[in-house]
Amino acid sequence: MKRNTAPARGMRDLLPAQVELRDHCAAVIQRAYERFGYRRVETPAVEHIGLLTGSGGGENEKLIFRILKRGEKLDLEAGGGLDELVEFGLRYDLTVPLARFYAEHAAELPNPFRALQIGPVWRAERPQRGRYRQFTQCDIDILGEAGELAEVELIQATSAALSALGLTDFQVRLNDRRLLAALVRGCGFAEGALPEVFIAVDKLDKVGLEGVLEEVRGKGHPDGALRRLQDALAAALAPEAARGAPVPEGVALDAEGEAAAERLAAVRTLASPGLPPGVELLFDPTLVRGMGYYTGALFEVSVPGYPFSFAGGGRYDRMLGGLIGREVPACGFSIGFERVVLALEERGVQPEGRPSRVALLHAPELSAAVVVAAAGLLRAAGRAVATLPQRKKLARQLDELATQGFDGFVVLEPGRAPDVRSFQSA
Amino acid sequence: MKRNTAPARGMRDLLPAQVELRDHCAAVIQRAYERFGYRRVETPAVEHIGLLTGSGGGENEKLIFRILKRGEKLDLEAGGGLDELVEFGLRYDLTVPLARFYAEHAAELPNPFRALQIGPVWRAERPQRGRYRQFTQCDIDILGEAGELAEVELIQATSAALSALGLTDFQVRLNDRRLLAALVRGCGFAEGALPEVFIAVDKLDKVGLEGVLEEVRGKGHPDGALRRLQDALAAALAPEAARGAPVPEGVALDAEGEAAAERLAAVRTLASPGLPPGVELLFDPTLVRGMGYYTGALFEVSVPGYPFSFAGGGRYDRMLGGLIGREVPACGFSIGFERVVLALEERGVQPEGRPSRVALLHAPELSAAVVVAAAGLLRAAGRAVATLPQRKKLARQLDELATQGFDGFVVLEPGRAPDVRSFQSA
Repeated sequence: MKRNTAPARGMRDLLPAQVELRDHCAAVIQRAYERFGYRRVETPAVEHIGLLTGSGGGENEKLIFRILKRGEKLDLEAGGGLDELVEFGLRYDLTVPLARFYAEHAAELPNPFRALQIGPVWRAERPQRGRYRQFTQCDIDILGEAGELAEVELIQATSAALSALGLTDFQVRLNDRRLLAALVRGCGFAEGALPEVFIAVDKLDKVGLEGVLEEVRGKGHPDGALRRLQDALAAALAPEAARGAPVPEGVALDAEGEAAAERLAAVRTLASPGLPPGVELLFDPTLVRGMGYYTGALFEVSVPGYPFSFAGGGRYDRMLGGLIGREVPACGFSIGFERVVLALEERGVQPEGRPSRVALLHAPELSAAVVVAAAGLLRAAGRAVATLPQRKKLARQLDELATQGFDGFVVLEPGRAPDVRSFQSA
Repeated sequence: MKRNTAPARGMRDLLPAQVELRDHCAAVIQRAYERFGYRRVETPAVEHIGLLTGSGGGENEKLIFRILKRGEKLDLEAGGGLDELVEFGLRYDLTVPLARFYAEHAAELPNPFRALQIGPVWRAERPQRGRYRQFTQCDIDILGEAGELAEVELIQATSAALSALGLTDFQVRLNDRRLLAALVRGCGFAEGALPEVFIAVDKLDKVGLEGVLEEVRGKGHPDGALRRLQDALAAALAPEAARGAPVPEGVALDAEGEAAAERLAAVRTLASPGLPPGVELLFDPTLVRGMGYYTGALFEVSVPGYPFSFAGGGRYDRMLGGLIGREVPACGFSIGFERVVLALEERGVQPEGRPSRVALLHAPELSAAVVVAAAGLLRAAGRAVATLPQRKKLARQLDELATQGFDGFVVLEPGRAPDVRSFQSA
C-alpha cells in the first residue's frame, strides 16, 4: 500500500528543473550584488522565540512555527500554558535575524556592512495558489550608513540584479515615510490620524482614488482635509508628476517634509545615471509599504504587465538600536525571489552554461564494463552523462527523457554504431 | 542596553568568508556530480512528524525538533500528552525526505533517478565543539538501479567530487553488509548474535582488535567462534589484504556471502579505472556503518591524517518499499559537508574566480555624486566595490579591511590621485 507522501501542507518539493532555475536566479542575483560590495551571510533557520516575537514583526509574528522545548525543560504538567512549552521558532523573515547577527558580529565586519541574504523563511499562512509556507527571500541591507549613498547603492544594485535576470523596462518608485507624513499633515489631518490615512492610501492600487477617500471619509477629520488629500493624490497620480518633484506642485510641506523631499530628489539624481538601460526612477508620494519599522526612504519595483511589485524596501533606522544598545542606521531592499522565479518560468528562461545532459541507454545484454567505459569517455568529452537501461519501447522512452531535461541520448547496443543525438535536432 | 544576541544554542551564524568557502565547496561538488547525471532536488525543511518517526531513523528520531500544531488543532486541555500537540518536525536527514519525494514524484522522473541534495538538517544533539544542531548534508542517491552500476557510479562520482575539492590520495573502503554477516556466521556465531558482533566490530578503529574481542567475549558464544573472529579480523587488518579479495584467504563464506564477495570484487574492478589519480579502492571486511537500513554494499572514504571519514554510504534496497508500495532498489553516498569545509578551511583554501574586492574609501568632504561616479567606474572595470567612509586612522582601517576580506583599496580624497592598491602587494 502506498502511504500519503505529499509534502507537509502548504510546503512543496522542488523538481530538478525547478531547482536549476532557482539556482540560476540566485547565482545571477548574487553576482550582481557582489559587484556592489554585498557579501552573503547566513543565520540559522531557528531563533529564540523571544527574539521573533519581540522585534516588531507585526502580523508575521502570528504566523510563527513554534518549536517545543526539549528534555526536562518540557513539562506539560507545570501549567503556564503554551508559552512555557515553546523555546524556539522558525524565522519568518531575514531582517530580524540580520539585526541579531549584526548586533553579535559588528566588531568583525566592515562599517558600513553590506549584507546579502538568500534563504528560506517560514510562515504558517493559510495555503493558497502560489503562496507557500516555506519560501525564499532575497535581501540586501546596508547597516551603518546614514547618508543617501545607502539608498543610491541599494537602488542601483537591485536594478542591476533584476536587469541581469532579463527583467527590463521596469520602474523603481520612490517615496519617504516622512514626506508622506508631511503631505497628510499638510492636508490638515491630525497627527493621530496618520496611520489610518496611510493604511487607506496603501490600498490606492487596488481600490482607486475614490476607494481611498471612501475609507477616510466620515471619521471626524477637519473640514477640507479630505478635499486637500483628494487634490494631492490626484496630482500625484498625474503621469508627468512622477518625473518632476517628490511631491506635486502646490502640496504644502512642513520643514521635515521639505528636508525629506530634498533628500529624495538627491537620491534620484545620484542613482539615475548608474541604472541599466530601460530602468526608470520615479517619485510616488502615494507609496506606503506596510511595515511599521520604516523611518525614511521607501522603494518599490514595478514591472509593466505584472499586478504585484518585484522588489521593495526602505530605511529602518530604529530597528537595530534595541538589540545593539546604540542607534545604527539601516536601509534594505528585498527582491521577491519567488515572483522573479515565477516570471522567468513563464518566460521559459533556460539557465545557460551548463554541460549538455546525455542519456546513455544501454541494452540489457551489454556488460557493466562496457557501459562504465562508454560513460567515462563521454564525461571526458565534457558531457553530463546518466546511464539508463534501454526500454523495449525506445521511442516512448526518448519522449520521456526529452521532457525530463535531457539534451540528447546515445543508444548503446551490440552491432549499432554509437552516436550522440540531440533531442533538439531529432 | 545590549540584549543577548547569540544564535540559538548549538546553532551558528556564518560570516561572509565562511559562506563563501561553503558556497565554493557546494558548487565544486555539484559540478562534479552533474557530470554523472545527478540533478539537485529540494524538499521542505519541515515534514509530518509521522514520516520522521516512522522511517527507521533510529537514534536520530529522538533528536527531532518538534513543531506545535496551530490554531484550533492545538488544544492543551484535550489531554493525550505531547503527541497530540505536535504536527510537524524538522528533518534530521535527507534520506527520509528523499524517499517521500521519490514516492510522490517517481512518474515524472527518469528511471533510475539520480538525486543530488545539499541542504540543512536539524538534530537536537547536545552541543559540542564542531558539532552543530543545524548542519549541511550532501547526498547523492540512485533510485531504481539494482545492478552494480549504481555502486560503481556512486564511487566514481564521489571520488571525482572530493578530488575536485583538492582532497587527494584518499581511500574508498568497500564492504557488503551480507559479506560481513556471512563472515561472522562463518566464525560460528549464531544468527541472533550478529547485531551485537557488528556493533563491536564497528568500534575497531577506536578500541582496536583486543577491545572488540573484549566486548564480544564471555557472552556464551560457541567454542572457537571468538578465536575464528580474531583470526579473520587480524587477517583483514593485514596491509596487503585490502588489495586482494573482499575477505581474507581462509575465511569461510556461505553461498550468500560468496555472491556478495563476487559482486563486491566486480564493483572494485569496474570502478577503479575511472578514479582520479591518487584515489584507491580497498576492501575492508570490518567496515560496518551504523545505520540499520543498509542491505548490501557499504562505502566509506578515509583521508590520511584525519581520524574520521569524509564520506559514507551504501545500498538500502528495503527503505522505499514501505512508502511506495513496491520495492525500489536504492543506493547512496553522502559527503560529510561540514568536515570537508573544515578541512579546506584548515588548508587555507581560497575560492577562485571571484572578482577582486575593492574598498573605496571616501573623504568626508567629497560629494556623494563623486563617490557614486567613482564606484560606478570601478565596477565597470570589473571590480566588486564597497564604498566606505575614510576614517581618521587610515592605517588601522586598512589593516581591518584586509582581514575583512577586501583584496585592495582606493583612497578617494581631493588633491590625491586615485590609485587602486592591492593589500597583497602593499
